[in-house]
Amino acid sequence: MRIIGIDPGSVITGAGVIEIVNGTPGVLDFDALKMNSKMSMPARLKKIYDFCIAKIQKYNPEQLSVETAFFGKNIQSTLKLGQVRGVVMLSALNSGLGVSEYSPREIKKSVTGNGAASKTQVQNMVRRILSIKETRMLSDASDALAIALCHYYGSLNSKSLIVKKSPKKTDWKQFVENNPGKIFRRVK
Amino acid sequence: MRIIGIDPGSVITGAGVIEIVNGTPGVLDFDALKMNSKMSMPARLKKIYDFCIAKIQKYNPEQLSVETAFFGKNIQSTLKLGQVRGVVMLSALNSGLGVSEYSPREIKKSVTGNGAASKTQVQNMVRRILSIKETRMLSDASDALAIALCHYYGSLNSKSLIVKKSPKKTDWKQFVENNPGKIFRRVK
Repeated sequence: MRIIGIDPGSVITGAGVIEIVNGTPGVLDFDALKMNSKMSMPARLKKIYDFCIAKIQKYNPEQLSVETAFFGKNIQSTLKLGQVRGVVMLSALNSGLGVSEYSPREIKKSVTGNGAASKTQVQNMVRRILSIKETRMLSDASDALAIALCHYYGSLNSKSLIVKKSPKKTDWKQFVENNPGKIFRRVK
Repeated sequence: MRIIGIDPGSVITGAGVIEIVNGTPGVLDFDALKMNSKMSMPARLKKIYDFCIAKIQKYNPEQLSVETAFFGKNIQSTLKLGQVRGVVMLSALNSGLGVSEYSPREIKKSVTGNGAASKTQVQNMVRRILSIKETRMLSDASDALAIALCHYYGSLNSKSLIVKKSPKKTDWKQFVENNPGKIFRRVK
């Protein structure tokens, strides 16, 4: 399974691609697209879309994972971030990939165990999990890898949840059939 | 010249296409894409993108004109609107069209002469300008036509501004050459 994680931003957009082989996640690529501050918003959107499409075409992942917006910022930057997220999601949809979204808290928690971890802590854990030796790595790139890892760990959890799932409360008929020794008296 | 106007929305997105023939704007199409309330945001974005692409391919306009965001809403809806605007702009950029943005006030003013006009007033003026007889027309569609008209009137104004433009204040050399009779004393 291959997953691309995107950390969307109108100034820097990070991308990270991981591959799961025999249950072990490994890194295929991490990168950060830096925008010129003089570029118009439409030009940025086009550049971000083309950046995502190029990564998808190169690595052919099955899933794109993206960070949900951070709502603490002002409304102008929220609108900009919305536009960036829109084109990022569209790059996946136009390529037939699944799209999943995770909050900053979920991402940090899934990688470091702490939902309030710092960017440095996230990067250190990402380096350790994926055995990354390169010394130069923008936090946008490590965040993108963390977003991809978060989707992988999330899919593990949801699978284990399915295995551990307790029978439906309403499914008494099945319960009775499976537990004949527990029947005390049949209700007519 | 053909212009497509888009009124972006995560619930209803309006589209309107106009054509200018001998300085008279006429209507080619107006439409509104209604989204099912149960649809996920990624699915909506894909549908809106495909809707815009289909209109662009059908009518082959040179310019896409879009309303800038309304900032009075809450941050959640601003983010959603940002995503929709992002994919709308991208549909134009991926088709090689120019993109222009106008505020709700500019659009209302350019069509009705009043920046605080109601949706009904906008629709009535759009109907009159474009001689639209159809009785059924969503305000999202008439707003989209108004957005396209706003770009047309804006391009007219910018042209007339170029003609009327006063000479640059710093261009004294040119002024002196053009007005020999006004020279009182030459400074050495």
